[in-house]
Amino acid sequence: MSVEEPGGDREQAVTDEVLASFAKTADPRLRQIMDSLVLHLHAFARDVRLSQQEWDAGIDFLTRAGHLTDDRRQEFILLSDVLGLSMLTVAINEPKTPGATEATVFGPFFVDGAPEVPLGGDLGHGAAGTPCYVSGQVLSPDGGPVPGARLDIWGADEDGFYDVQYPDGHTAGRGWLRAGEHGDYRFWTVLPTPYPIPHDGPVGDLLTATSRGPMRPAHLHFKVTAPGYRTLITHIFVAGDPYLANDAVFGVKDSLVVDVGHYRDTPAPDGSHGAGPWTRMGFDLVLAPEEAGFRAGA
Amino acid sequence: MSVEEPGGDREQAVTDEVLASFAKTADPRLRQIMDSLVLHLHAFARDVRLSQQEWDAGIDFLTRAGHLTDDRRQEFILLSDVLGLSMLTVAINEPKTPGATEATVFGPFFVDGAPEVPLGGDLGHGAAGTPCYVSGQVLSPDGGPVPGARLDIWGADEDGFYDVQYPDGHTAGRGWLRAGEHGDYRFWTVLPTPYPIPHDGPVGDLLTATSRGPMRPAHLHFKVTAPGYRTLITHIFVAGDPYLANDAVFGVKDSLVVDVGHYRDTPAPDGSHGAGPWTRMGFDLVLAPEEAGFRAGA
Ligand SMILES: [Fe+2]
Ligand SMILES: [Fe+2]
Repeated sequence: MSVEEPGGDREQAVTDEVLASFAKTADPRLRQIMDSLVLHLHAFARDVRLSQQEWDAGIDFLTRAGHLTDDRRQEFILLSDVLGLSMLTVAINEPKTPGATEATVFGPFFVDGAPEVPLGGDLGHGAAGTPCYVSGQVLSPDGGPVPGARLDIWGADEDGFYDVQYPDGHTAGRGWLRAGEHGDYRFWTVLPTPYPIPHDGPVGDLLTATSRGPMRPAHLHFKVTAPGYRTLITHIFVAGDPYLANDAVFGVKDSLVVDVGHYRDTPAPDGSHGAGPWTRMGFDLVLAPEEAGFRAGA
Repeated sequence: MSVEEPGGDREQAVTDEVLASFAKTADPRLRQIMDSLVLHLHAFARDVRLSQQEWDAGIDFLTRAGHLTDDRRQEFILLSDVLGLSMLTVAINEPKTPGATEATVFGPFFVDGAPEVPLGGDLGHGAAGTPCYVSGQVLSPDGGPVPGARLDIWGADEDGFYDVQYPDGHTAGRGWLRAGEHGDYRFWTVLPTPYPIPHDGPVGDLLTATSRGPMRPAHLHFKVTAPGYRTLITHIFVAGDPYLANDAVFGVKDSLVVDVGHYRDTPAPDGSHGAGPWTRMGFDLVLAPEEAGFRAGA
């Protein structure tokens, strides 16, 4: 992509010198990554003829992102998300197994230490919103059940906030459970709503400057693990959401969009919530088997 | 550089979607930068077939860099320096004026608010090291003087540390002065010594993992500003330094390497330091005139 210009030789000399400096890297994979990173980073700077002020702005952007990041706010993941690097990494690593549930972005809102709930229990833990009963089966691609799979689930409340975005440190709208002996799973939470990604930092400034919106369509996060299977990180999205075609982090896949049933005066499958309102989403999670040597070069 | 592989279409679709999201950017320069950044960032991830674990490691690297950065430590500038992005940006923006002093990296150790010293004064302010008398002229490319230019100077002490690397907050080895009416300048400081860039953080870990050293050859930093001229950011390097061919940040240019005179029992040009030891470096600073429309696209 580079255009020849008078300083080309001098600029190429810098790139060559940097590449040479990595020549003694013992780990061949690390050397491959650093060489490619240097080539593409330098090609970017040369292509746009990066000015010193723009370089300054880049350093300032990263500094602000770093200072905003803590154990409840992850501005670098947001940056990766809005640049599509997160979804591209998902695509690169997606198992090629036909029929497996598609993956999507992990996002910045997973936290360790969420509470276990029993099969059929409520992981809303008081989050504001319409109760939502979510159920389905964890399956292998041949249609057989995956008994005892672990499901981690996290979602936003009806105001569009995850628990970690509240200053009080409470836990709500997240938890984990084990699928039953037929791979069956069911739990209560609250119906997710669309929400803006945190946009009071440098990533938000970037979205504003580029006339992009911060909204994500309503979704519930799943992380599903079971011995012998690849970990599945995905969402289910609420059908009809106005932001499905315009997700700030490019996470939507058609196969992950799920119809929501709305109920009043009808009891839920477990007999509760007879007076309503409550809602229901059903989704089967198909795990890809673990493959030896999946990674490129391995 | 991309190699065709089965997921290519899916991966290209992510890149296309991200590029489309920037299409409404009002500032054409910002759009150009974001488009190029996305293309090169995605090409990097595809070329190396970036794994999720490697993506995680990248997020963790940036997070650690951010947490280490404050108003006295700048890990992102160090990162840019060791990846050669800083020197490449210097090369891209170098004035094309024949005879102008070459520029080099700014580095992470400049701080605002350094003290003014008179022409001929001492900006060592008690820094440990052999006294060094530095003098020369600030000139335009036609050889005429640039009177009243402002020179900001900063350097490490004989232990290889800048003042900001000491925890006590004292100021030493830095200051600014104005050149005289013939563009002449002179000041005392301490003779710089080679030093390691700060390597107790993620950038240091990267250098270790890639068998690269952290050392920089001995140098003194200059920032020279004068109305009508482009700001010059450069170093002078000490001739004979063992790290001249192996600078961790790729900053050395032959034209910036200066012989050092070592003296005993001889007074300095201002009559001081008769018993010695003292040292001397001489270097003329040739500023490029400001050019309208220098920046690409402007
Ligand atoms: Fe989310
Ligand atoms: Fe330095």
